[in-house]
Amino acid sequence: MNIQDYVNKICLNASSSASEIACTEESIKNSILSSLINEINLSRDIIKSSNNEDVIKFKSSDNFIKSFVDRLMINDERIDSMISSIEEIISLKDPVGEIKNLKVMPSGIKVGKMSMPLGVIAMIYESRPNVTIDASALSIKSGNSIILRGGSESIKTNIVLAGCIRRALIKNNVNECIVQLIENTDRKIVNELLLQSKYIDIVIPRGGKNLIKLIDELSSISVLRHLDGICHVFVDKDADINKAISIAVNSKTQRTGVCNAMETLIVDINIADKFLPLLQAHLNKKNVEIRGCPKTKNILSKIKSASEEDWGTEYLDSILSIILVSDLSEAIKHISQYGSGHTDVIVTENIDTANIFLRRVDSSSVMHNASSRFADGFEYGLGAEIGISTNKLHARGPVGIEGLTNEKFIVIGDGNIR
Amino acid sequence: MNIQDYVNKICLNASSSASEIACTEESIKNSILSSLINEINLSRDIIKSSNNEDVIKFKSSDNFIKSFVDRLMINDERIDSMISSIEEIISLKDPVGEIKNLKVMPSGIKVGKMSMPLGVIAMIYESRPNVTIDASALSIKSGNSIILRGGSESIKTNIVLAGCIRRALIKNNVNECIVQLIENTDRKIVNELLLQSKYIDIVIPRGGKNLIKLIDELSSISVLRHLDGICHVFVDKDADINKAISIAVNSKTQRTGVCNAMETLIVDINIADKFLPLLQAHLNKKNVEIRGCPKTKNILSKIKSASEEDWGTEYLDSILSIILVSDLSEAIKHISQYGSGHTDVIVTENIDTANIFLRRVDSSSVMHNASSRFADGFEYGLGAEIGISTNKLHARGPVGIEGLTNEKFIVIGDGNIR
Repeated sequence: MNIQDYVNKICLNASSSASEIACTEESIKNSILSSLINEINLSRDIIKSSNNEDVIKFKSSDNFIKSFVDRLMINDERIDSMISSIEEIISLKDPVGEIKNLKVMPSGIKVGKMSMPLGVIAMIYESRPNVTIDASALSIKSGNSIILRGGSESIKTNIVLAGCIRRALIKNNVNECIVQLIENTDRKIVNELLLQSKYIDIVIPRGGKNLIKLIDELSSISVLRHLDGICHVFVDKDADINKAISIAVNSKTQRTGVCNAMETLIVDINIADKFLPLLQAHLNKKNVEIRGCPKTKNILSKIKSASEEDWGTEYLDSILSIILVSDLSEAIKHISQYGSGHTDVIVTENIDTANIFLRRVDSSSVMHNASSRFADGFEYGLGAEIGISTNKLHARGPVGIEGLTNEKFIVIGDGNIR
Repeated sequence: MNIQDYVNKICLNASSSASEIACTEESIKNSILSSLINEINLSRDIIKSSNNEDVIKFKSSDNFIKSFVDRLMINDERIDSMISSIEEIISLKDPVGEIKNLKVMPSGIKVGKMSMPLGVIAMIYESRPNVTIDASALSIKSGNSIILRGGSESIKTNIVLAGCIRRALIKNNVNECIVQLIENTDRKIVNELLLQSKYIDIVIPRGGKNLIKLIDELSSISVLRHLDGICHVFVDKDADINKAISIAVNSKTQRTGVCNAMETLIVDINIADKFLPLLQAHLNKKNVEIRGCPKTKNILSKIKSASEEDWGTEYLDSILSIILVSDLSEAIKHISQYGSGHTDVIVTENIDTANIFLRRVDSSSVMHNASSRFADGFEYGLGAEIGISTNKLHARGPVGIEGLTNEKFIVIGDGNIR
């Protein structure tokens, strides 16, 4: 079969299975997810051995990158974590089918809304095989059909995991095409998929920046886009110094290679003398390199200068740029100019100042007195996330099952006409 | 100034004014809208005389279409209706800035959401000059900056109306670039606008199908897309015959040239013998041409045959296609195959049947015992609509001020770290 026919067949399967899962009752959807947990438990050995084959092959390949191996690797602990993610999704309320906010209009009709699944999701991802399980479970619970296209480096693991999902679907007598893994690793398949706007409602890429940028450029379908995470923490003049230290240290160092880590610290000049030397002592212990603006350098000796480029850089590393500002509005202006609309934090004891920051900063997550590392679907109670959106339309921030639905209008009358 | 520089200047103005209106208080936004009502009242004569110039010019132009003249024309009654639309928008609650659904998570952080303006809207529309006022008022109330690009046929009217808006903005000491009318009618401007994804957050076209299709194809920005309105009414076997007659007649004939008019009637075969002859008598009085499937023709003599093409045609005219089905699921299947996802209606006294229809039909508006003509922002209490969306992401159906906002996550802690 040529690539066009192959992709076309998958899309037709997805499209016809979408209407089936869209109207499947909550109890059956949860039963599929429970069966999936069983299947994963029964397949622990084969999951680990196929994953080991993937890891060995990847280590000897030209694409070998050390940090990828960690993401690719599956052990019992990671299998447990996949299972608890499914359990969390089972415990979530069915996001579709309920009529909400029904109001009587002057004409006598009642108007409300009902959440519905989007339809068909295409998930394109690299290395982490847990995405196969997370994305499928979120998709099933939200009533969508999903097409999975994982990276070639994890293909053997993904095939075994997709087998678990297929058996769980079949056991519950629903269409097995509700979740389809593309087993052909030819790269041309992705290009072909991105043209299927007739069948696919949303494309969700998950992986490196280059993958996401490429997909965004090629796709004729809406993309749940997640580009840079240039996150800021602003320490206001009315900050509690201890909270500011622990939030700044945690936001920068709890994990550095992730999109919700802080990259730039903004400090009100009126608190900088007290705050910065204490912070420096903590960051030195964690081997964080500091790059500062000229005013920061007046307070902290022996640090590098931050260049214009630093303010727009997502380091994903143990590097922090620091800028001093004279007030709140200068801080907001810096965030609006250099931020990526991902996550920004204010540390202050002044509620009025906090409220202005929360209202004015237009990022997908805006926080008061909390670490930027909380910007995460699990921490927000969404039960795993299918991606983090920096789009301005549809869902913003961590996207869980609710972001995989839309709302239609429901009108109820009793013979009403205009 | 060349076209690129011209568009660039407008976009920069929009972008900087967007952050200003985004945080403007409700009382000031309402005061701008009240001033706008005053300005329109003071300008009645000049509005009508400039409009008259537009109409005269259009009548003598090569593009002359009779139905366009009606849309283009402004009289006192239409000015009154613009004003009541603004009054309605004033009465709506401010859609932005409030923190909603704050919940405490297991980690101790509180997570909620806040609605925010989208940013910059580009509105591209034909003939109807009331769009200039409606779109600007909705945009101001929802905290967005808007760029208006009306058709050349209504340019003089639009310039006068935009003058009223500008004076209302200036009187309230806010940035006059919150609403910008493009006065240059060169068509290349639209193409240039559609490339400005850096500055414009959403493009809203309003006009003929060709305009919308063209914009959708050219735009690198998200488009609030409204294509066909192939709306169905399904008369179930448990329908009340009188309600079915009045809903079918109203849906087809109250106005025929609009997107929420019924194009195809679906009738359960078990009620067809009783229902169809009565309906035919009513439709004959209104000169509606009926085209039926073979089974319909068995009941109604002297009607034309509906071809396969009829089921997918938006007539926008006094023509109705009728198909008989053996049950609810066949009706839903027909709608899913031929419908456009705009508005579909069931007429039945059986609540269970109605609920299955409301749940299963995936259109932006799904109705029970009400005329399809109710699918309208004003009837839904949205206070005028900026467009009707047949997208599956972001807003669906009539879009009012809520559809011009998105939601960001708000996190409130007390020094919480991970």
